[in-house]
Amino acid sequence: MPTYSLGLIRDLLGGELDGNPELQVTGLKRLEDAREGELAICLKPRAGVDGQRIAATALVAPSGLPLDYPNVIRVENSRTALIALLDLFYPENGRPSGIDRRAYVSDRAQVAAGAFIGPGAVVEAGAILEAGVQVHANAYVGEEVVLGEGSILFPGVVLYKGTKVGRRVRIHSNTVIGSDGFGYVADEAGVLRKIPQKGGVEIGNEVEIGANCAIDRATLGVTRVADGTKIDNLVQIAHNVEIGRGCCIVAQVGISGSVTIGDYCVLAGQVGVSDHVSLGDKVVIGAKSGVMRDLESGEYIGYPAISAREARHAYPLIARLPELRKEIRSLEKRLAELEARVGTVHSAVEDLDSVDGGSAE
Amino acid sequence: MPTYSLGLIRDLLGGELDGNPELQVTGLKRLEDAREGELAICLKPRAGVDGQRIAATALVAPSGLPLDYPNVIRVENSRTALIALLDLFYPENGRPSGIDRRAYVSDRAQVAAGAFIGPGAVVEAGAILEAGVQVHANAYVGEEVVLGEGSILFPGVVLYKGTKVGRRVRIHSNTVIGSDGFGYVADEAGVLRKIPQKGGVEIGNEVEIGANCAIDRATLGVTRVADGTKIDNLVQIAHNVEIGRGCCIVAQVGISGSVTIGDYCVLAGQVGVSDHVSLGDKVVIGAKSGVMRDLESGEYIGYPAISAREARHAYPLIARLPELRKEIRSLEKRLAELEARVGTVHSAVEDLDSVDGGSAE
Amino acid sequence: MPTYSLGLIRDLLGGELDGNPELQVTGLKRLEDAREGELAICLKPRAGVDGQRIAATALVAPSGLPLDYPNVIRVENSRTALIALLDLFYPENGRPSGIDRRAYVSDRAQVAAGAFIGPGAVVEAGAILEAGVQVHANAYVGEEVVLGEGSILFPGVVLYKGTKVGRRVRIHSNTVIGSDGFGYVADEAGVLRKIPQKGGVEIGNEVEIGANCAIDRATLGVTRVADGTKIDNLVQIAHNVEIGRGCCIVAQVGISGSVTIGDYCVLAGQVGVSDHVSLGDKVVIGAKSGVMRDLESGEYIGYPAISAREARHAYPLIARLPELRKEIRSLEKRLAELEARVGTVHSAVEDLDSVDGGSAE
Repeated sequence: MPTYSLGLIRDLLGGELDGNPELQVTGLKRLEDAREGELAICLKPRAGVDGQRIAATALVAPSGLPLDYPNVIRVENSRTALIALLDLFYPENGRPSGIDRRAYVSDRAQVAAGAFIGPGAVVEAGAILEAGVQVHANAYVGEEVVLGEGSILFPGVVLYKGTKVGRRVRIHSNTVIGSDGFGYVADEAGVLRKIPQKGGVEIGNEVEIGANCAIDRATLGVTRVADGTKIDNLVQIAHNVEIGRGCCIVAQVGISGSVTIGDYCVLAGQVGVSDHVSLGDKVVIGAKSGVMRDLESGEYIGYPAISAREARHAYPLIARLPELRKEIRSLEKRLAELEARVGTVHSAVEDLDSVDGGSAE
Repeated sequence: MPTYSLGLIRDLLGGELDGNPELQVTGLKRLEDAREGELAICLKPRAGVDGQRIAATALVAPSGLPLDYPNVIRVENSRTALIALLDLFYPENGRPSGIDRRAYVSDRAQVAAGAFIGPGAVVEAGAILEAGVQVHANAYVGEEVVLGEGSILFPGVVLYKGTKVGRRVRIHSNTVIGSDGFGYVADEAGVLRKIPQKGGVEIGNEVEIGANCAIDRATLGVTRVADGTKIDNLVQIAHNVEIGRGCCIVAQVGISGSVTIGDYCVLAGQVGVSDHVSLGDKVVIGAKSGVMRDLESGEYIGYPAISAREARHAYPLIARLPELRKEIRSLEKRLAELEARVGTVHSAVEDLDSVDGGSAE
Repeated sequence: MPTYSLGLIRDLLGGELDGNPELQVTGLKRLEDAREGELAICLKPRAGVDGQRIAATALVAPSGLPLDYPNVIRVENSRTALIALLDLFYPENGRPSGIDRRAYVSDRAQVAAGAFIGPGAVVEAGAILEAGVQVHANAYVGEEVVLGEGSILFPGVVLYKGTKVGRRVRIHSNTVIGSDGFGYVADEAGVLRKIPQKGGVEIGNEVEIGANCAIDRATLGVTRVADGTKIDNLVQIAHNVEIGRGCCIVAQVGISGSVTIGDYCVLAGQVGVSDHVSLGDKVVIGAKSGVMRDLESGEYIGYPAISAREARHAYPLIARLPELRKEIRSLEKRLAELEARVGTVHSAVEDLDSVDGGSAE
């Protein structure tokens, strides 16, 4: 682990240093893990920090954080600072390159000089691998797949025939792209006949896709993930889905066939979206929600998903349903009693009326 | 892409042509993608179609669709027509065959002539691969696995020891069949002791299984998926589950241990079924539902799943719980006021009574 | 399948035999599958058993089960008995060992004598494989990975660089451990910049992990699964999660970043836990629940998860919301009528009052 002075780190982060700029730190850790001689980073902007339990020699902390500690570098955005610090303390190794002799690469594939193809990887005929591409061990690149400059397939990734992947895309292990969409027609006897899936998948530039995801090819046309979108692990993207730019699709989300999602949307973990639904730009869906209709920009939660503001009032009331029912029961009883009494009063008044009437006559 | 006349296509589909039977089209596209010279297909039977925005030379459309366009072939079922058109415009290539020299095939495996075993695939001792079987790159066929005629394992599929697969089954990439069921017994100290999983898995004929699924072997006996059932991506099927014929199991469904599912059931995306639950034939479960008890034929939604008719009334009311609670509060207030007033009236009447009684005396 | 006498089996299980100890049985089956000559095991302690439909020659059954059958071995805990019987009837084969010539093992990896490395498996530089380790076909062991004594990677498992795995751990096919955590920072333009993920993953001893799971490396520090925890298929464990000892994490659970889970917890199928949530020891979460806040020891269900006792009363009332609303409507109507009548009565009484007052005067 390299060693740096606090002055150098302050300058790198553009922060302010309370403490000794000559002091050297030799490793970057989380607050709770850091030991003497190391630099720790505080990520939670609001949480109080107990200075006495910190062993780190110096801290990087958000400017707003209440904190009394010798040697603190204050930064505006601690997550941006984290990126710079990780790059500083964990510099990237050189990229691997070359074709392992245990890989299978078709004579009819085009592989740029400097690309890496690991042991057991398979590259089929017609595939195009641009400069700096890495296809790690046991990954599979089907016929006519295109992998743009600098893209990486981690071990075990499978790209079916014809999948197009942009530049600087990272696809984590055992993710499958381009498998058949789930399309059948039931005949009169209920037998499910397969609709051949003949479309493709196109992944934009700077996309990252987690482990064990499944993105299906379109029936006709293209399933599409646009530039800069990030996809977590175990996500399902069905045939003919179109996802815009800069979206975050968190783990275990399921997006049904022909869904359209705009730019800069966030789908939190385990969300499901029904087929043919269309989401606008900047739609944010809370974890575990089920989206069953088109939604405009805004925040939504629940099953069915409603505006987050409504949902935060409504969902906790499920727990109070037994109490609400009890209140209704109690109102009913009180009302029935009152009705009986008013009935009595009423007849009493009617009696009085007639008495009165009688007496008036 | 091949070229066909509208007359030929009409005859193939058994439809009716408004337009010129001699006209040639050279590609099949979705309505929104088709360009001049191409054939487009309209799949939504009810949606209006804006003729002016269509660039296709000819359309295939359901007979009921309101549509004014030159050169339309009308068909009864556009999805059945789609299958025929996809087969016409995208004819299947010849099947691959032969054993790649980078595959490992045990001397004690039986492989029919004409089977395909791709680079990096592994076929263990005692496995039986019938005619036309395809085991693609890096797939794994364990000991004593049987793969029936024409079945296909896409790259990276893993079949553990003893898994039996029927004929014309398609299993997509990185799906795992026959891994251990999730069975443990906690001892007095809370330590979980593994229950050995010694049963198997049997997959029927014409089953299709998506990418990245997991189907566990039975503890004893067999986990079973019957003929013609179709399973989407990322589906979990636990030990000792039995699924009937012609079912649709949509993406990310989880079926717990020892569940029994009848024939022609549909489980929509992200559904969960509790262990030992039994579903009859033709049970349809809506997306994201949690099934916690046995269900007869019918449609169900929700958590816990209830009849869909009920659920469609009930679930949207969650959003209105704050309003319902407000109404209850308001009723309570009005009732309390009324009680107070009726109390007054009542005493007033009682006063009157006594007055009146007094005066009558 | 081996043959044993009922006397031997009784002694092995420490049970009581009603029947002939000399009688031989030749296979172990589930009650419904067993045929003459075989031993069947009844696992459900309470379910009635219809003796007439059993074909087995002898039964192993829990002592409490009402059952009239010749040749029954009564045991206290039928699941513990099942483990002993499975070990008896299905003895483990010898472990495989040796390095397949189609495997790739770096010169700089340390592989203990007797370890097994299957065809197509890859072991990178700096990896350490202790005694009895099995790395099956096409699995991937990244740089500096440690695999403790007796641990098994089934075909297609991927361990990214630096992952530490304890002793006697079983990891099922196509599970991915150590892929990048899902961490980005949006810049002013909304572009998501990747936070490099430089921490690791540590898996304790006697852990079992199902098929197609994803466990991400920490950003800094370690994602940890402690000794004896069992994880089912298709589970997502995000970066910096810490899971205690002896937990059961059932299929398709999703655990968000920086969640802490105590010892002996059970998360049932499809549960989701929000990021930074902390669960105590012995927390049990019901299937499909969404946990959004810290929870102490106890049982919880629902979305948001509440105490199971509350939830069992509350959730079924969702189905009755339309009815509750109708009751509220009806109360409102009755109350309005009553208010009108009381208003009338009131004025009548006021009239009477004045009349009465008048007459009194």
